[in-house]
Amino acid sequence: MTSKLTLAYDGGPFAGWAIQPGLRTVAAEVVHALQVVLRQPVDLTVAGRTDRGVHALGQVISYPGPLPRLRSVNALLPHEISVYEAEAVPDDFSARYDARSRAYVYRVLARSAPDPFERGRALWWPYPLDFSVLEACAAALPGTHDFTAFTPTDTYHQRFERTVLSASWTRTGPLLEFRIEALSFMRNMNRILVGTMLEAAQGQRDGFERLLEGAPRSAAGRTAPPHGLYLERVRYT
Amino acid sequence: MTSKLTLAYDGGPFAGWAIQPGLRTVAAEVVHALQVVLRQPVDLTVAGRTDRGVHALGQVISYPGPLPRLRSVNALLPHEISVYEAEAVPDDFSARYDARSRAYVYRVLARSAPDPFERGRALWWPYPLDFSVLEACAAALPGTHDFTAFTPTDTYHQRFERTVLSASWTRTGPLLEFRIEALSFMRNMNRILVGTMLEAAQGQRDGFERLLEGAPRSAAGRTAPPHGLYLERVRYT
Repeated sequence: MTSKLTLAYDGGPFAGWAIQPGLRTVAAEVVHALQVVLRQPVDLTVAGRTDRGVHALGQVISYPGPLPRLRSVNALLPHEISVYEAEAVPDDFSARYDARSRAYVYRVLARSAPDPFERGRALWWPYPLDFSVLEACAAALPGTHDFTAFTPTDTYHQRFERTVLSASWTRTGPLLEFRIEALSFMRNMNRILVGTMLEAAQGQRDGFERLLEGAPRSAAGRTAPPHGLYLERVRYT
Repeated sequence: MTSKLTLAYDGGPFAGWAIQPGLRTVAAEVVHALQVVLRQPVDLTVAGRTDRGVHALGQVISYPGPLPRLRSVNALLPHEISVYEAEAVPDDFSARYDARSRAYVYRVLARSAPDPFERGRALWWPYPLDFSVLEACAAALPGTHDFTAFTPTDTYHQRFERTVLSASWTRTGPLLEFRIEALSFMRNMNRILVGTMLEAAQGQRDGFERLLEGAPRSAAGRTAPPHGLYLERVRYT
């Protein structure tokens, strides 16, 4: 049988998702906990590898093997990681290849004073900001574009076109949230998108739309820090 | 002139509000930061002294003296404390005596798996729970009652009657929130109320209403942990 698990994690203390020798990573912790509980090797497939410091609210993994008792798994995991759903799926299910879309959210606290409860969870932005510019940028994103400007020059990607299904900014008091959904993203893409939109909203640049036509990385803005970014949900149907 | 400041803090690392020699307290941090910025002694009055580990979203303080630059104060405060509003008020204003009511919220995460983003911010309750029992308990609270059962026996209070203006539980997914507003509360009152209501909702006790008529402390339930409790707002008008 194949098992599908949904988990949340605070990416702060981890060197990203993927296992790397000598580093504390989310995958290493999850594999360890599952292997202890299931008493067998576990070969994980993940829906969306997250970078160092990026969070997840609804990461999805799958592996050939039985469902674990979640209480046992969570007791073994560090408190920054929690598995909250488990489901038996068809043998050929893959958390990665069967995903129809990934949705991310980037959270920005736009006010002059910091908020102790948003530290490490939202980008604190005490600078001027025109929300309508953020809205206009997001409105340009849906559709298929060449996102070369939004990933590092030193890249393993071979295709730079991606199709954005939806993108929008919302505002609740001082908290701004950017949500974006696509089949897949390139490395750092969402963080560079956010960094560039914030520069535009600060009045430091215009012509955001033109960056979506294969402009070079140097034409886009800074990479926003990872602690505002969350893999929010992976869709399979 | 007199200044009124509103602040938020994560109570986790502090030994409560009030200054105590040798301990790290919220008031000690705030007084220190204000004195450095204002270059004068600061004699604080606080709306609601919070206990060890209790949080605040809208704590209010006042002192005779000028308004500080919030950016400077926040730069000196530890990241668990943030002053986000400052207002000049009449000379005779007192954050404590002019308060018309204090509102607290207690947050409970009621699901089998923990949530890394609610650790230290909500009580994790993986046990059975009947929400309608919580609602019925809260409905009994408004009005004037003798809350002797809801404060430690070893007490400095002299009157045990308090008038609750409003009390209710709300539910958003797995997150339950208990809100209560009153002119004043006794020590540990909200935490013992929550601990007792949770025992009732778990089916371990009934007769919650009868506890409000001066029953002894031993008749009520356990004291819920401090990390779910927040001083949410202080009303002055």
